[in-house]
Amino acid sequence: MKLLLINPNISDSVSDLIRSEAERSAAPGTEIEVLTAPFGVAYIETRFESLLGAYAAAQLAGEHHRRFDAVVVAAFGDPGLGALREVLPIPVTGLTEAALASAHLLGHRISIIAISQRIQAWYREVVEACGFGPRLASIRALDRPLSSIGAVQDEHAQALKALAERAVDEDGADVIVLAGAPLAGLARSLRGQLPVPVVDGVSSAVRHAETLVALQAGRAQHGSFAPPPAKPHRGLPSAIESLLRRD
Amino acid sequence: MKLLLINPNISDSVSDLIRSEAERSAAPGTEIEVLTAPFGVAYIETRFESLLGAYAAAQLAGEHHRRFDAVVVAAFGDPGLGALREVLPIPVTGLTEAALASAHLLGHRISIIAISQRIQAWYREVVEACGFGPRLASIRALDRPLSSIGAVQDEHAQALKALAERAVDEDGADVIVLAGAPLAGLARSLRGQLPVPVVDGVSSAVRHAETLVALQAGRAQHGSFAPPPAKPHRGLPSAIESLLRRD
Amino acid sequence: MKLLLINPNISDSVSDLIRSEAERSAAPGTEIEVLTAPFGVAYIETRFESLLGAYAAAQLAGEHHRRFDAVVVAAFGDPGLGALREVLPIPVTGLTEAALASAHLLGHRISIIAISQRIQAWYREVVEACGFGPRLASIRALDRPLSSIGAVQDEHAQALKALAERAVDEDGADVIVLAGAPLAGLARSLRGQLPVPVVDGVSSAVRHAETLVALQAGRAQHGSFAPPPAKPHRGLPSAIESLLRRD
Amino acid sequence: MKLLLINPNISDSVSDLIRSEAERSAAPGTEIEVLTAPFGVAYIETRFESLLGAYAAAQLAGEHHRRFDAVVVAAFGDPGLGALREVLPIPVTGLTEAALASAHLLGHRISIIAISQRIQAWYREVVEACGFGPRLASIRALDRPLSSIGAVQDEHAQALKALAERAVDEDGADVIVLAGAPLAGLARSLRGQLPVPVVDGVSSAVRHAETLVALQAGRAQHGSFAPPPAKPHRGLPSAIESLLRRD
Amino acid sequence: MKLLLINPNISDSVSDLIRSEAERSAAPGTEIEVLTAPFGVAYIETRFESLLGAYAAAQLAGEHHRRFDAVVVAAFGDPGLGALREVLPIPVTGLTEAALASAHLLGHRISIIAISQRIQAWYREVVEACGFGPRLASIRALDRPLSSIGAVQDEHAQALKALAERAVDEDGADVIVLAGAPLAGLARSLRGQLPVPVVDGVSSAVRHAETLVALQAGRAQHGSFAPPPAKPHRGLPSAIESLLRRD
Amino acid sequence: MKLLLINPNISDSVSDLIRSEAERSAAPGTEIEVLTAPFGVAYIETRFESLLGAYAAAQLAGEHHRRFDAVVVAAFGDPGLGALREVLPIPVTGLTEAALASAHLLGHRISIIAISQRIQAWYREVVEACGFGPRLASIRALDRPLSSIGAVQDEHAQALKALAERAVDEDGADVIVLAGAPLAGLARSLRGQLPVPVVDGVSSAVRHAETLVALQAGRAQHGSFAPPPAKPHRGLPSAIESLLRRD
Repeated sequence: MKLLLINPNISDSVSDLIRSEAERSAAPGTEIEVLTAPFGVAYIETRFESLLGAYAAAQLAGEHHRRFDAVVVAAFGDPGLGALREVLPIPVTGLTEAALASAHLLGHRISIIAISQRIQAWYREVVEACGFGPRLASIRALDRPLSSIGAVQDEHAQALKALAERAVDEDGADVIVLAGAPLAGLARSLRGQLPVPVVDGVSSAVRHAETLVALQAGRAQHGSFAPPPAKPHRGLPSAIESLLRRD
Repeated sequence: MKLLLINPNISDSVSDLIRSEAERSAAPGTEIEVLTAPFGVAYIETRFESLLGAYAAAQLAGEHHRRFDAVVVAAFGDPGLGALREVLPIPVTGLTEAALASAHLLGHRISIIAISQRIQAWYREVVEACGFGPRLASIRALDRPLSSIGAVQDEHAQALKALAERAVDEDGADVIVLAGAPLAGLARSLRGQLPVPVVDGVSSAVRHAETLVALQAGRAQHGSFAPPPAKPHRGLPSAIESLLRRD
Repeated sequence: MKLLLINPNISDSVSDLIRSEAERSAAPGTEIEVLTAPFGVAYIETRFESLLGAYAAAQLAGEHHRRFDAVVVAAFGDPGLGALREVLPIPVTGLTEAALASAHLLGHRISIIAISQRIQAWYREVVEACGFGPRLASIRALDRPLSSIGAVQDEHAQALKALAERAVDEDGADVIVLAGAPLAGLARSLRGQLPVPVVDGVSSAVRHAETLVALQAGRAQHGSFAPPPAKPHRGLPSAIESLLRRD
Repeated sequence: MKLLLINPNISDSVSDLIRSEAERSAAPGTEIEVLTAPFGVAYIETRFESLLGAYAAAQLAGEHHRRFDAVVVAAFGDPGLGALREVLPIPVTGLTEAALASAHLLGHRISIIAISQRIQAWYREVVEACGFGPRLASIRALDRPLSSIGAVQDEHAQALKALAERAVDEDGADVIVLAGAPLAGLARSLRGQLPVPVVDGVSSAVRHAETLVALQAGRAQHGSFAPPPAKPHRGLPSAIESLLRRD
Repeated sequence: MKLLLINPNISDSVSDLIRSEAERSAAPGTEIEVLTAPFGVAYIETRFESLLGAYAAAQLAGEHHRRFDAVVVAAFGDPGLGALREVLPIPVTGLTEAALASAHLLGHRISIIAISQRIQAWYREVVEACGFGPRLASIRALDRPLSSIGAVQDEHAQALKALAERAVDEDGADVIVLAGAPLAGLARSLRGQLPVPVVDGVSSAVRHAETLVALQAGRAQHGSFAPPPAKPHRGLPSAIESLLRRD
Repeated sequence: MKLLLINPNISDSVSDLIRSEAERSAAPGTEIEVLTAPFGVAYIETRFESLLGAYAAAQLAGEHHRRFDAVVVAAFGDPGLGALREVLPIPVTGLTEAALASAHLLGHRISIIAISQRIQAWYREVVEACGFGPRLASIRALDRPLSSIGAVQDEHAQALKALAERAVDEDGADVIVLAGAPLAGLARSLRGQLPVPVVDGVSSAVRHAETLVALQAGRAQHGSFAPPPAKPHRGLPSAIESLLRRD
């Protein structure tokens, strides 16, 4: 089985974190490939940055998906996920959606630990659009500047752990999600140090993508995730255009 | 006052409908300019098409906004609206948001009349993300093929009126929204023929954009609509890049 | 265009604030008239006081609406608004509804700043009945006695501004609503001093009433805002009775 | 124990129905008095008619409550109930609230059977404002003209029973509420003829009012149902004014 | 009238508290019998303990219900209530459901005061399953070890009262529910000492059970509370088996 | 890896279906064991039957869990799942929860196809308690008698497929869940015959249980899924009692 993980941002250091955690998490026989967006921003905190990441993810998916069994949008917030699910003939998931699926199987109330104050409003909107609003205990986030996005988890591990503990004690969290590709792998290294189960997006997405491939649930031919109806288009990059073609 | 209406799709015929209704709706002294997306699809029915329209709208906004007092994303579903509100220094609204604001002032339960079956799921998600889910009585849509997107309202006016009547009788609608730029002007021509108030997106967006300019409510410096924090970026078109610059 | 603003309370000093802000906000050519309730209380903080204001507003509307193009119920909480919308043949809005419509066009999460602790429960119920519960970030209120209802904004401007800042910092507000007719004009004088957009009810209601008149959306003949069905009645003041007559 | 039931409408025939069912329902030793509004409409179907009924109920309550242990607002929709609860020193309930309390103790999903199509929107708003929206299976209503409000249940008993049966079969109702004072007593006469438990407002309100008197839960001194803060007022009928006096 | 109150836990001291408050609360002529679970835990704080209590309550109900007019599941959280309502031919209620019904008749926003931190999550789930989530202002709980479950209210009365006061002041509670059979009678002894109405589960359940018997609303023959369809079963205790028999 | 699937009902024929589908679904190296409840009913349609199944599942889990890496409650509705999650030291999931997790990764709106009319109300409550209410498009069910619970899918495959198609066409389903252990394997045999992705509970639960074991997210020491606090208990079967022991 071959999985494509698309980092919709330009940070190679984050792609390295994603790759390492994905490889540690994958079942035997699963091959992992991680691609980094050729254009965009370093990481996503806002709706506008997500718009950019979604477009970059769509281009990478359009160009590369044919070699893979499933695709993962490897940024928390899942930029472009719903859109790609319409046009890709293979399963696709994202870090938020996958982490929420794991958390849903481990407890009722979920807290998300994030890397910046600004990111919280956007995360909340994504979780609510996922239909998980009623299960969100809280979002808590670092409130200090990040010197390097690839080193967040090294520099702030204790602060992130403290946020998780407060989410359990004060917000009633049953499960912790460590959010964002820059935190890939931190759940693994905090194992046994937190009072409730803890999950991250990358390991969840890899495992759930494998499950979707195994379940062979079928592709939508009707409903809102069927391919878009054919209609005139113009001026699109060929990778995007290929996703609109119905063969 | 100068308003920029961005058609995030490639259909010049729809841009003409938008321009006509916008000019009829504007207050004296308001100048209207409508721009058509240089790339994309003919009209938006799905999440993927919306992703494309959002990126096109961002490029047009980045290139042209400096000459205007406010911007309108002139497609129902408001592709890119939340993102543009973060980066533009002037008010911005969209057809869905504006039509809902009008409808909110006219009654409690709102039905949306749309041009295709497929479009309904995406519209529902947009309305719910707007926070108007509890007020949505129904979405009803044409179920026949559209021969030409610019001629929908001419060819299907009676069918659209009949859908509105059923929404009142069977779904308890207090207000009707005729949805989609291709229906721009239809509310005006159906005046007096429907049993409840009826609004459309273009006239609502023009009027509400004027109101936002007049109210001078101020730009967000904090909160989730402040400009995105500065961070590294790469490879973006200059129109997009200009929206990330903080001057 | 002639707008009638009904102060459903007996405070002439508040009517003066309403009139000043309404005149500053109106488009050229709009005439403003403000009427003060002949009976009732000084300002509304509770459901019972709102019941009194609603009845007074209905009497004033019944007596005077024929000279106007639209009516505004000029108290936050909009006493009697839904009822008047059924019986008046012209558009009618209220300060809460109109402020929420403006705020909806400026951001997602809305905080309301109010003049007394007691008023908060009633405001919350009104906002929820409007369907805006999911968008309410918080209600924050002064906690000191008010020496004079007409002088609240002069005496407490700094405290009100501080409440707004806390709503942004602690509650995640994207937009601030300064609530209550006694604060009419304060949004204007705080322009540029708050970190997010700020709106008030009077300017919003005037502008949105103008929009409703311009849109000519039509009067409800069916649905829940059509005039009440004819039935026996008895003993009503003539101004009220005139609203039940179907001509 | 003495209970005051206030018919906020002018129909003596409905007051007779209320009195009969109240007397049949009351515990031994409970005295029932029913007062009919001196002004208003024959029965309430809309928000405006409810506004009138609320004001009439407030006047009757202000004038008479001192002789009673509890008050019932005896119209479905409970006009003025929340307001009266603030100002009366004794328990007060209403037909909707009381019927919902009974239904809540008998099953999960509740359907309401009503006497007119028009009444449904207003009932729905009342039920939602009560916080019972999630438990409402449906509202179903007669769709024929009512020749006499006091004779509705006699003339339409079979049609009402058929609506209840459809609510069970098609809407998943666990409990039926026969709504409106004009249906007082119908639940009793349909006993054993419906496939699920059935309740009405008058018998529920009488029993629950007795319970509130027995429980002696105490009057609100703080919170949103404490008496309104003292403030200037003017021009109010003495019965209303007496409710604002804090002794 | 004879009421059976089932303590689904093994604590005789709590059964004594239940019996005393039930007898004080009952109308003249109502006979009270309290049975204690022969197996289970001392009191319920979690879902697993509730599962045990539900099974014990079902056995007691199956064995004894034939001598009674109504049954009360006398633990907060109402273990087994929905299940018993399907199989018992007489009305059945529980402490949570009954306390919420009382509170619903006294105000809008309800706070629950509980005896342990751990119990809060389970209570919240029960209240939300009841459909009362939107009306829950807060749950506040003791945070100290309980030396003896039968003596909680004696030892912690002041702490419980302080929690109630904070719920009013900080959470906007209109009504207080003192939760849990171990607090039976405390509402009565705190009468007049709290700033808002206060109710408990035992007195509410007794009164509402009497009301259900009086209303004679009928037993469900269809809908989700009709007896379970006949089907094979095996190995059940005879008391349980008797509840599956349809005579 | 060893998985224990507990059929909380007494039907060996259903256990055979569960075992077959579980073995087909498991990853290489996963061992499957299915245990059938020694007491209870043939299958669960109601809350009372679920109460019995929950108690049986708890006994089997208490007796056998020590030999396994994870436990699956193998009935739709997941009787006892939340309770077992508190007391078992290994991951535990159920058919409903697992099917919803799969469906969540495949689309937005989910329809459930069930085997009897009666079962629907209980399923709806379980889905809502899971927090998936907003994503439920519909529940549709067979309306004919079942001659043998083990042969439902053979006898009714076409009717079940037709229900799924109507859910897509009329209810807007993006994903179909074939609900109930008696339908185990039907999703597999309908592959490619439905217009949207289709999942079942058994294959989902097996795959997700494997994922939970692989993720090693940690056991709850705090929060609402930590083991119940130690307290007196009495008269419990030893298998149950062992689950209360904290070692």
